[in-house]
Amino acid sequence: MQQAEQVVVDNGVNVEAILGARDALTETPAAAQFKWRATSEWVDGTHTRASVENFYGLGEEQKHRQVFGFDTDHPELFASEDNGATPVEVVLVGLAGCLTAGIATVAQNRGIQLRSVRATLEAGMDLQGILGIDGDVRNGFDGVRVVFDVDADASQADIEALVAQSQKRSAVFDIISSPTDVQVEARKS
Amino acid sequence: MQQAEQVVVDNGVNVEAILGARDALTETPAAAQFKWRATSEWVDGTHTRASVENFYGLGEEQKHRQVFGFDTDHPELFASEDNGATPVEVVLVGLAGCLTAGIATVAQNRGIQLRSVRATLEAGMDLQGILGIDGDVRNGFDGVRVVFDVDADASQADIEALVAQSQKRSAVFDIISSPTDVQVEARKS
Repeated sequence: MQQAEQVVVDNGVNVEAILGARDALTETPAAAQFKWRATSEWVDGTHTRASVENFYGLGEEQKHRQVFGFDTDHPELFASEDNGATPVEVVLVGLAGCLTAGIATVAQNRGIQLRSVRATLEAGMDLQGILGIDGDVRNGFDGVRVVFDVDADASQADIEALVAQSQKRSAVFDIISSPTDVQVEARKS
Repeated sequence: MQQAEQVVVDNGVNVEAILGARDALTETPAAAQFKWRATSEWVDGTHTRASVENFYGLGEEQKHRQVFGFDTDHPELFASEDNGATPVEVVLVGLAGCLTAGIATVAQNRGIQLRSVRATLEAGMDLQGILGIDGDVRNGFDGVRVVFDVDADASQADIEALVAQSQKRSAVFDIISSPTDVQVEARKS
């Protein structure tokens, strides 16, 4: 009889720490109240530079290891300079990152070794909305489609279940698919 | 009598081109159908690298001047390596870029010279949602607050109207504040 191999699954996710955090936050729900932040500065035209550095969580101010900077702009076909991805493409980047992190975490928890996880995202938008041509056309996406190609030691059904569980717990999936109140204030400086 | 100064407003936005595009797309609405895209590749743990390069619009495939790359990750307090902003912060970056580009465009159209436009964004999130502690807590933001500090040749009322008009035509504001259908598919590769 062949001896069963000891398979060590390592997707680089510390599931014990996450489960520990879940226990800790179940005890002290106030620590689970996070505030995520970004600041931005207009550069010129449609070009903006944003920074992400601080956030609040576990009851105190937190800092990323470094400041993360992002340029957004509009493409040349809108007579802009294309100094960065468009803001709507950046939202797709957030969705990809959120769902993929979830897939790695759930896979680790389920003992599924991942080899590669690729996502392809596409979102339709009818520009008659933002250009004010047709008031019945929304400004945002008319829908988003995400396709994951997952290479892993798992069946198609297991992979589908993995991706479905990630979607179920994804913050950005929820932000895009469900309404969120956004308050915008303006001050003359 | 003092001679009125000729004030040339230049926010770096080519409003004539945008109005021309609006006229053109009013004639040919099919050209207004855009498809925005991103692709991503899991790196390790919660770290993902995304790219933005191609999109579809004006009836044909389009390309950015360069590939725009983005790293997303989770912070160290979630036992991750903090190799990039979190996906939810990236969504805030998109909102900042979209509203700011709109402010510059509307200001140009209204003859308002901007000197600086700063945005501060904050979004609350109760982590009991994504951690599955409390099924009544949503995964996403419980709300977003954006404060714009605008230095411009305009009154407080004009600045408020400017920001309100940008919000009214913002794609990312709409994506966050209104529901969008997101379809996620998984394939074993």
